[in-house]
Amino acid sequence: MNFDALRQQIKQQTDEHLLGLISQLPDHAEHLKAAMQHALLVGGKRMRPVLTHLVGNSLDIPRQDQLTISMAIECIHAYSLVHDDLPAMDDDALRRGQPTCHIAFDEATAILAGDALQTLAFSILADQPMSDYGASCRAQLVSILARASGFNGMCGGQAIDLQTTGEAIDIATLTRLHRLKTGALLSACVQMITMVSANISDSDRQQFIHFADIVGLAFQVQDDILDVEGEASQIGKPQGSDAAQGKNTFPALLGMDAAKQELARLHQEALQALATLPYNTDYLTAFTDLMVNRNH
Amino acid sequence: MNFDALRQQIKQQTDEHLLGLISQLPDHAEHLKAAMQHALLVGGKRMRPVLTHLVGNSLDIPRQDQLTISMAIECIHAYSLVHDDLPAMDDDALRRGQPTCHIAFDEATAILAGDALQTLAFSILADQPMSDYGASCRAQLVSILARASGFNGMCGGQAIDLQTTGEAIDIATLTRLHRLKTGALLSACVQMITMVSANISDSDRQQFIHFADIVGLAFQVQDDILDVEGEASQIGKPQGSDAAQGKNTFPALLGMDAAKQELARLHQEALQALATLPYNTDYLTAFTDLMVNRNH
Repeated sequence: MNFDALRQQIKQQTDEHLLGLISQLPDHAEHLKAAMQHALLVGGKRMRPVLTHLVGNSLDIPRQDQLTISMAIECIHAYSLVHDDLPAMDDDALRRGQPTCHIAFDEATAILAGDALQTLAFSILADQPMSDYGASCRAQLVSILARASGFNGMCGGQAIDLQTTGEAIDIATLTRLHRLKTGALLSACVQMITMVSANISDSDRQQFIHFADIVGLAFQVQDDILDVEGEASQIGKPQGSDAAQGKNTFPALLGMDAAKQELARLHQEALQALATLPYNTDYLTAFTDLMVNRNH
Repeated sequence: MNFDALRQQIKQQTDEHLLGLISQLPDHAEHLKAAMQHALLVGGKRMRPVLTHLVGNSLDIPRQDQLTISMAIECIHAYSLVHDDLPAMDDDALRRGQPTCHIAFDEATAILAGDALQTLAFSILADQPMSDYGASCRAQLVSILARASGFNGMCGGQAIDLQTTGEAIDIATLTRLHRLKTGALLSACVQMITMVSANISDSDRQQFIHFADIVGLAFQVQDDILDVEGEASQIGKPQGSDAAQGKNTFPALLGMDAAKQELARLHQEALQALATLPYNTDYLTAFTDLMVNRNH
């Protein structure tokens, strides 16, 4: 199967399973349920599930376990987008070309939908089907996901982002911000899926995690570049919205040429990390190329 | 030790441990950290930890395990108050006589602080010290807490509350709303602490949980009564704020006399539930009396 077909298959399976999960919720709060579904299924690229499945496939992790981990990650990712889009945060009316949750519903419902999606993520790790990896496995998965998404990860990064918007920061601070805000969750995908592998060596596991860190940073640099050079119709939001909001970005701090050089450097570093791994990583190479070359 | 002294001791220990937990967080987002601390330590009654410890003491659960469960519960409770107070939700500037989180800080920080406190709750259950109750225990605690706080519990109840504010609803709907919004988390305290007891029978466990359900409802009826008859200086918010917001309450639906009769009925039912348990429940009787007779 070629990479694009595999990627579509993973996206479709993830969507189906997330939809199944939401449709199983009871009917006592229809509005909230609809908002959670809207947030989960607004049509993302499912980059995190794709990464999780590709690493999981390399390590022969059963499909069901890949799905359980992917769904938990996507619930965290979806909740973070809903809250980031709120008027008090980034105040975005469009996400992937569609109305954001507080526009499609209302602000209170969007806050609650985000809250309930975060809870759902931990519910999934505690309750959804998973092979028997030893009884403490689920708690370790909860520990990894909580660390990556809370103060020590995503929430902390978002706080730094809010505090430094409109301020001049250095490249080290910008890098740390992104390692927390987007990198931690990508790293968590790989930390979780490698944790359930019985056979992987500790050094190979660290190398996979290092790969995820580099790809996460490359993803963000390309995101910043697209905000300047991308087509609004492709990126699903107005061009230049980072600059308009006074966001610190790699092109703003380094200049566009140096930002593109940095992206190329990260691209090579990610590929080198893959090359040292004793697994078939062809699809992960294609994934890396896509993260760096994507136009949306 | 008399009940008031024990209650103060539990409150003080819970506060100290929560403060210790926050102070251990790294310094990368000071503003967010301060907001999380403000939200956790704004001076609540720590009713949920008190309930957890009292049931835990009856069952000889070690103090450390009581604390781990209590801290997780309080993080969920604190996050819910921060988000409920937001302008898009109840728009409250005061909580327990002190500025709410979005007033003391700002709205974006309050949203994030709530988010990070929810994550912290699950982190605590995964990582904080706990006796060895079998390796799947922590995942089961996560499962209970997630069910009680997400769509199937607290978030679902808050959604029903928002949707029905200003609308006429019946007493069954109001009861269901409160069972989800506040009852589920009180029940979770008892579900979690009885789950780690090796010796309790299934029927005694169910009886403890039934007791928590009744006390939770009684607590809410008294809350509604206090909103009409309480002193603003005691209840920490203006008298009549429920009515001003068009909230459905027990006195509004039943009339004040019938609401007080319902409270007395629930009081007796809770005491009867305790009386059938083969444990020393004297402190739980005092706790029940306090919930029903409190003036704030």
